[in-house]
Amino acid sequence: MEALQIRTTARQDMVNVTREVQRLVEARGWTDGALVLFCPHTTGALTINEAADPDVVRDIKANLAALVPERGDYRHAEGNSDAHIKTSLVGPSLTVIVEDGRVQLGTWQGIFFCEYDGPRARKLWVKWLSA
Amino acid sequence: MEALQIRTTARQDMVNVTREVQRLVEARGWTDGALVLFCPHTTGALTINEAADPDVVRDIKANLAALVPERGDYRHAEGNSDAHIKTSLVGPSLTVIVEDGRVQLGTWQGIFFCEYDGPRARKLWVKWLSA
Amino acid sequence: MEALQIRTTARQDMVNVTREVQRLVEARGWTDGALVLFCPHTTGALTINEAADPDVVRDIKANLAALVPERGDYRHAEGNSDAHIKTSLVGPSLTVIVEDGRVQLGTWQGIFFCEYDGPRARKLWVKWLSA
Repeated sequence: MEALQIRTTARQDMVNVTREVQRLVEARGWTDGALVLFCPHTTGALTINEAADPDVVRDIKANLAALVPERGDYRHAEGNSDAHIKTSLVGPSLTVIVEDGRVQLGTWQGIFFCEYDGPRARKLWVKWLSA
Repeated sequence: MEALQIRTTARQDMVNVTREVQRLVEARGWTDGALVLFCPHTTGALTINEAADPDVVRDIKANLAALVPERGDYRHAEGNSDAHIKTSLVGPSLTVIVEDGRVQLGTWQGIFFCEYDGPRARKLWVKWLSA
Repeated sequence: MEALQIRTTARQDMVNVTREVQRLVEARGWTDGALVLFCPHTTGALTINEAADPDVVRDIKANLAALVPERGDYRHAEGNSDAHIKTSLVGPSLTVIVEDGRVQLGTWQGIFFCEYDGPRARKLWVKWLSA
């Protein structure tokens, strides 16, 4: 598998990694199959959502933070229980389709690494499965 | 990959697509492997849940709408930020197992296309991965 | 595919199944590819989160139960609508990477079977996809 390096810049962040994933597909010459994208962190997750208007990312972040606030009924002593909960709601892995050497996404879609306890240096693991 | 056409009929909808997915598996002669199911829209998602009692789907829809209401702290100007948020909570892709030419699901399970900004004509992408 | 047997011990439970999944990989001699993990139940789900401090699991359970309470605006007559909703939020399937015969997880990660309507005897389906 491959590991992409991600730099997040806020406690809660969503980093568009679509270009890095596509570049990896091209560099490896992968043409027809699927990519397993996996976040090896327990306070980070992966999602696919609109990459055009940055207000979409802002709205997702603000409303997830309101649903699962930083302070609350938490016993875990590290002060990041909200991050662990958001990780399980959004999910640690995604599988995306590759055809003709291109990651297949809808018009408005981008792949995002979701940070919930940053800023940090993070990894995104990528495993190729041929069709 | 293949694209199934989905017609949603309400702003928030859950369309049972189990039969269409199974028919595709049979039409292509796929027998042993997995299907990557992928929603190429940023206001739609995929889930698996009970397909027997329609009140389950009703309860999922009503309570997701209560958790992430249509009006709220949103800056995205298209009036569908709730839909984008629900998309990231429920998730854009699923991988299901196929054996003996049958999509393997539990007794009560069905595959649902989740619409959060309909009604619309939608697509569901399907990629075959052999075992 | 293979079926692991899971015993849950509370209405809402998170059972760490990492060891059982790794043992299966070793028993089958799977070395390089991915595992599709699938929950065939409509009131159970799968997640990956911190397996070190049990307070993380406690906090995830307590806060999911607060977000989606056992009693609420539900029509499904079985009294477990909250469980169905949590299933769609957390998700029924995961894909994890295997290399060198080892399930690839981050330092703090464990794989959890999430029970939302237990205690019950449950199954976790596992399908091998070679790279």
